[in-house]
Amino acid sequence: MIYQRPLVFLFVILLSFQSNSQTDEKVLREIYTQSLTNGKSYDWLNHLSNQIGGRLSGSLNAEKAVAYTKEELEKIGLDKVWLQPVMVPKWVRGAKEYAYIETEPGKTTTVNICALGGSVATKALGLKANIVEVKSFDELKELGKENVEGKIVFYNRPMQPDLISTFEAYGGCVNQRYSGAVEATKYGAVGVIVRSMNLRLDDLPHTGSMTYDNIPVEKRIPSAAISTNDAELLSTMLELDKSIKFYFKQSCKQFKDVLSYNVIGEITGSEFPNEYMIVGGHLDSWDLGDGSHDDGAGVVQSMDVLRLLKASGIKPKRSIRAVLFMNEENGLRGGNKYAEIAKKKNENHVFALESDAGGFTPRGFSFDCSDANFNQVLNWKPLFKPYLIHYFEKGYGGADIGPLKTDAVVLAGLRPDSQRYFDHHHASNDTFEHVNKRELELGAATMTALVYLFDKYGVNPIPNQKAIKN
Amino acid sequence: MIYQRPLVFLFVILLSFQSNSQTDEKVLREIYTQSLTNGKSYDWLNHLSNQIGGRLSGSLNAEKAVAYTKEELEKIGLDKVWLQPVMVPKWVRGAKEYAYIETEPGKTTTVNICALGGSVATKALGLKANIVEVKSFDELKELGKENVEGKIVFYNRPMQPDLISTFEAYGGCVNQRYSGAVEATKYGAVGVIVRSMNLRLDDLPHTGSMTYDNIPVEKRIPSAAISTNDAELLSTMLELDKSIKFYFKQSCKQFKDVLSYNVIGEITGSEFPNEYMIVGGHLDSWDLGDGSHDDGAGVVQSMDVLRLLKASGIKPKRSIRAVLFMNEENGLRGGNKYAEIAKKKNENHVFALESDAGGFTPRGFSFDCSDANFNQVLNWKPLFKPYLIHYFEKGYGGADIGPLKTDAVVLAGLRPDSQRYFDHHHASNDTFEHVNKRELELGAATMTALVYLFDKYGVNPIPNQKAIKN
Repeated sequence: MIYQRPLVFLFVILLSFQSNSQTDEKVLREIYTQSLTNGKSYDWLNHLSNQIGGRLSGSLNAEKAVAYTKEELEKIGLDKVWLQPVMVPKWVRGAKEYAYIETEPGKTTTVNICALGGSVATKALGLKANIVEVKSFDELKELGKENVEGKIVFYNRPMQPDLISTFEAYGGCVNQRYSGAVEATKYGAVGVIVRSMNLRLDDLPHTGSMTYDNIPVEKRIPSAAISTNDAELLSTMLELDKSIKFYFKQSCKQFKDVLSYNVIGEITGSEFPNEYMIVGGHLDSWDLGDGSHDDGAGVVQSMDVLRLLKASGIKPKRSIRAVLFMNEENGLRGGNKYAEIAKKKNENHVFALESDAGGFTPRGFSFDCSDANFNQVLNWKPLFKPYLIHYFEKGYGGADIGPLKTDAVVLAGLRPDSQRYFDHHHASNDTFEHVNKRELELGAATMTALVYLFDKYGVNPIPNQKAIKN
Repeated sequence: MIYQRPLVFLFVILLSFQSNSQTDEKVLREIYTQSLTNGKSYDWLNHLSNQIGGRLSGSLNAEKAVAYTKEELEKIGLDKVWLQPVMVPKWVRGAKEYAYIETEPGKTTTVNICALGGSVATKALGLKANIVEVKSFDELKELGKENVEGKIVFYNRPMQPDLISTFEAYGGCVNQRYSGAVEATKYGAVGVIVRSMNLRLDDLPHTGSMTYDNIPVEKRIPSAAISTNDAELLSTMLELDKSIKFYFKQSCKQFKDVLSYNVIGEITGSEFPNEYMIVGGHLDSWDLGDGSHDDGAGVVQSMDVLRLLKASGIKPKRSIRAVLFMNEENGLRGGNKYAEIAKKKNENHVFALESDAGGFTPRGFSFDCSDANFNQVLNWKPLFKPYLIHYFEKGYGGADIGPLKTDAVVLAGLRPDSQRYFDHHHASNDTFEHVNKRELELGAATMTALVYLFDKYGVNPIPNQKAIKN
């Protein structure tokens, strides 16, 4: 609850806020109107998704996306547009995976799987073995080598449906996918099948990155995700008969790193050109869908932030960059490279905003920053109310901007409505038709509004200025 | 802005709020958990949408929906379940409509239209005439009889995209659909084509109700909606050549009123059984889709409110009813009948909540009530914060509950995210696959939480208790 400080002090703040906020109200109205009536993000996404498609790092599509977004950024009349070279991993899925449950020789039920990103292939004829279900690494440990060796480990802990944030539910499960192979290898498992990170019951397997840590190549075990429907089926069949076998075949392969790029566009600041504020999303995507929500949306919204600033007649005091990061999904090389170069050049980054949670209706932002900076943001909350932007909380910024973290910088993440996100995340239905134009545009406008305010008021708020929580 | 009253007074309120709010927090958590882990609304909607389908008043499907929902309400162990008879209009679309633009004899372009609900048919061979585009009734008046007589009037004012609430954008356009025929008839028009009430450009015509007021049957002109893509096409073609003709054919028909029902289930109050609180949606829908968002969602959420109260161990002090209204779309007979009977029986209705804005992520409520009651609601706002329910504003309750309005009753409308609603509203893509299970369940939980709080604290707040705005 609120009301914890003297009224007099508040009154002073309120008065000083009043006059500025009237201008700010008008500017925000203009930004939203521009985005909703004359936005470019949806057209750009249409091209990225439908003309290019899935953009896994190292793929031809990823390179097409680099070329396309650079060209489009050049068209909007920025001060600078350039490519920042970065070496990225190249993993290729190969032929479509195939899997079945075998209850007795010749009696099989086909199930939907896909290789996890980074996984090794099975042998050419596939892998067939008994399969053991666990819900956690603790459970796996308890089973021990005697119950796991020579078997496939089936991780089947579902995302928790009663959490309101689906990202929180994802966070509670994703270790199965990311570290499942490393853990299973400790007990002599020969393969890993992971329940898809999906709150819904459907037939689509969801891929995503995994690690082998220091396991030597020859000891790596193939790992795949299974659709939630088939995870339920497999679990039920195992309950009836622990001796059933699981077969899967995948031919994915890790190649040598290849050259790729972050794409960067800049409006150079009129007063403080050496203070950098960036907005970004990641240009790469998984290969199963066309990466519209993850993260085509964030890419085109970030591009549109620069365009919307110009279209709304805003001349930033600080240098604003759109950074389209390469390789967020399976390496974070782009994010690391951007931060490395920024450090090398001694560029003073004061603010970074990432959109990587889907193109759904924006609800607000989470902030990874000092209390003083966070309190400054809370002052702006009323400005966002007409746009139903209400979520302003401390929290995670984003993967790509993470390497920029210092005590001085404000990292922020756009927080769209999360309910539908994991229906599509890393699956073949992360496609353009599931993005709503207005929702995408509202996100772009909301990002632009925050950038405008941080540019105008700076990232060094009056010391001891406290929050006005609304 | 806030902080307008002495801290001492606030402190007293805060203290008294504290102890109750801890219990309330737990109860709300239980309600949301029940809905998200054990909800019935999605299964019920699956049946309504996929086993029954579109449920236009007077249709066989509407009767099936009455029987099904009554049966399901009986299964959840309420104190009473009954049907409330009501005579409803019966309008039947007939064969699929057909329309084209003719630039010269024999040279035609087919366009997508659908008859507006309540419209008369064209003659059997259809209607062909010149067509004149207007954006408003004022523009029509200016054109006058000499430019309109013998022609089809094409209303083409689009929904305003820069409004954040799509319902507000709808409100700014829907007079074209509802009263377009009456206005056009004044100037001798022979037919009406209305741009679909849809913010998106697509190929789907959106139906909806229209009126002829007192125009005698033989003078009524046929009226249809055209898809937004085709409205754009028609407008462009008219710009090039005002002499083009428009042809359409529809065979819809108004029959005599038929008997139908509101479906009502009740948990009788333990302390104040004669105080009634209702939650409702409408059982009828348009015929083009399966009416999942409009208003299957509101129906199953209302049913689930009663079930969730029981499942969460709440024994209401007041009598809570789920009312599934018949005929919201083209007559409001169900809403009127319910209020008529309530008045006749002298039932003291203190609260009515309607869900008729789609099954999307709930954002909050609008309230049509006294300031005192509204301020009481604002006290509860912090309880809803964990569920990202933030919108509590004065405003519209709902069509079906409107006839219950008095000074004493609180009318409330669930306000889900509105961005996607008019993509589907009254069109063939208002179908089950566009409803997200979690979003629907969050709506049901949010409604249940509000009902719980109003039941617990009553609808007669402490006099002069003021708002705590958060």
